[in-house]
Amino acid sequence: MTVDVASLSPVALRHLIRQGKFTQPTSGLAAGYTQANLVILPRDLAYDFLLFTQRNPRPCPVLEISDVGSRTLHQFAQDVDLANDFPKYRLYRHGKMTKEVTSVADVWQADFVSFIIGCSFSFEAELLAAGIEVRNITEKVNVPMYNTNIPLVPAGKFQGHMVVSMRPIAQQDVPKAVQVTAAMPKVHGAPIQIGQPATIGITDLAHPDYGDAVTIKPGEVPVFWPCGVTPQNAIMQVKPDFVITHAPGHMLVTDVLNATLKYS
Amino acid sequence: MTVDVASLSPVALRHLIRQGKFTQPTSGLAAGYTQANLVILPRDLAYDFLLFTQRNPRPCPVLEISDVGSRTLHQFAQDVDLANDFPKYRLYRHGKMTKEVTSVADVWQADFVSFIIGCSFSFEAELLAAGIEVRNITEKVNVPMYNTNIPLVPAGKFQGHMVVSMRPIAQQDVPKAVQVTAAMPKVHGAPIQIGQPATIGITDLAHPDYGDAVTIKPGEVPVFWPCGVTPQNAIMQVKPDFVITHAPGHMLVTDVLNATLKYS
Repeated sequence: MTVDVASLSPVALRHLIRQGKFTQPTSGLAAGYTQANLVILPRDLAYDFLLFTQRNPRPCPVLEISDVGSRTLHQFAQDVDLANDFPKYRLYRHGKMTKEVTSVADVWQADFVSFIIGCSFSFEAELLAAGIEVRNITEKVNVPMYNTNIPLVPAGKFQGHMVVSMRPIAQQDVPKAVQVTAAMPKVHGAPIQIGQPATIGITDLAHPDYGDAVTIKPGEVPVFWPCGVTPQNAIMQVKPDFVITHAPGHMLVTDVLNATLKYS
Repeated sequence: MTVDVASLSPVALRHLIRQGKFTQPTSGLAAGYTQANLVILPRDLAYDFLLFTQRNPRPCPVLEISDVGSRTLHQFAQDVDLANDFPKYRLYRHGKMTKEVTSVADVWQADFVSFIIGCSFSFEAELLAAGIEVRNITEKVNVPMYNTNIPLVPAGKFQGHMVVSMRPIAQQDVPKAVQVTAAMPKVHGAPIQIGQPATIGITDLAHPDYGDAVTIKPGEVPVFWPCGVTPQNAIMQVKPDFVITHAPGHMLVTDVLNATLKYS
């Protein structure tokens, strides 16, 4: 029997992933539902990190935080196992990635705190719904991401500079793209820069620091949004003993509709 | 020489307060600038409390959190001394108020964390600007506040039910009042209930649990907003050894315009 994963509800998809039967990127699945990033930290780093996200909400929009040691959530998903319901995880020891796995149940610690963080998948869906092409989706590549000179507000051990994602937008669609994304502050909100990459320290659009380059056509403007790679970067600079994140593109599919992330 | 305090800038007003020359409520001062609530907790309670505010942003909208032990801020006010710049403070030991003072410099602890929390003064100013009467201002009393049966999302040691404030609004102005306040999520945002107090456990509008009763005229609807008394209540139930808050109405006057608290 084959299963059309694209037709599955969020909870059915999580069950499939939990059983190890789906280990692929989640882009395009459970259409309309919010997908989320993951950072798992030990409790002794959780206060500084939570403060860091509070001070830098644009690149670090927290959706929900687990209780200490808990593998469940209450607001964004029922029937969820945080140690198994992401298709792929990355383990980092002392700031270096040591492996990718499909379950972290065997390395789970009683002092773990899980941060569920908003992701641009949600606003890309809304841009498409507004009739605005999203080039990285059209070209089936990862969105291009760049380091910038925009300083973050430090918090305890955490500091650094903002990472941004870039999408080329047709000149006449830029205001609409701002409006659509500004209405979704829980998934990075409005652009941070429009059309002048040098002013935020980006000199070579053709060579992103993360992800893949995309085509910029004549008449299009590069538009930059705060990016969820920012908190991961800030964490790795601290070189914690042990941190777990999702693998890029391998997200948690939540029970919450993107539409409910708009101003409320 | 007399000083017209109503004409002072936020920083000039803070200087006056810091010198002990102004110890009155701050309502109506530094028009247009955000005023803020205060909760000072020891560091060992700060993580649970920050998580509690993250899970309950409607009644607990955090504007800024100090570094541990610091008496300064970075985002909402420059040239600020958190131990002296509120006109009046309340000290609580083991959950009971022990005294009101105009400075907490002599009881300051190296492990103190200050939470600066949004306050309805900001949205009341916007309601007035939209041509909507605010009855507690007209009648020169404290806004009426009520306990409800709306459960909060627990976080560590903190839990409880939401406290709400009530303003009677003319039937035809209710949609506008929702729009104006919904645009300011950092100061409680949209109403939580309109016109049906019994559904949230309020049975006697004439006898508020905090503050003063106000007149409700024919054709007016009682409208309820999440209230900043909520976090103070939740803290006192935990009976911490030592907590400091501002005295009601004796707020921090910040350098940030109310207008910038709107969706951004």
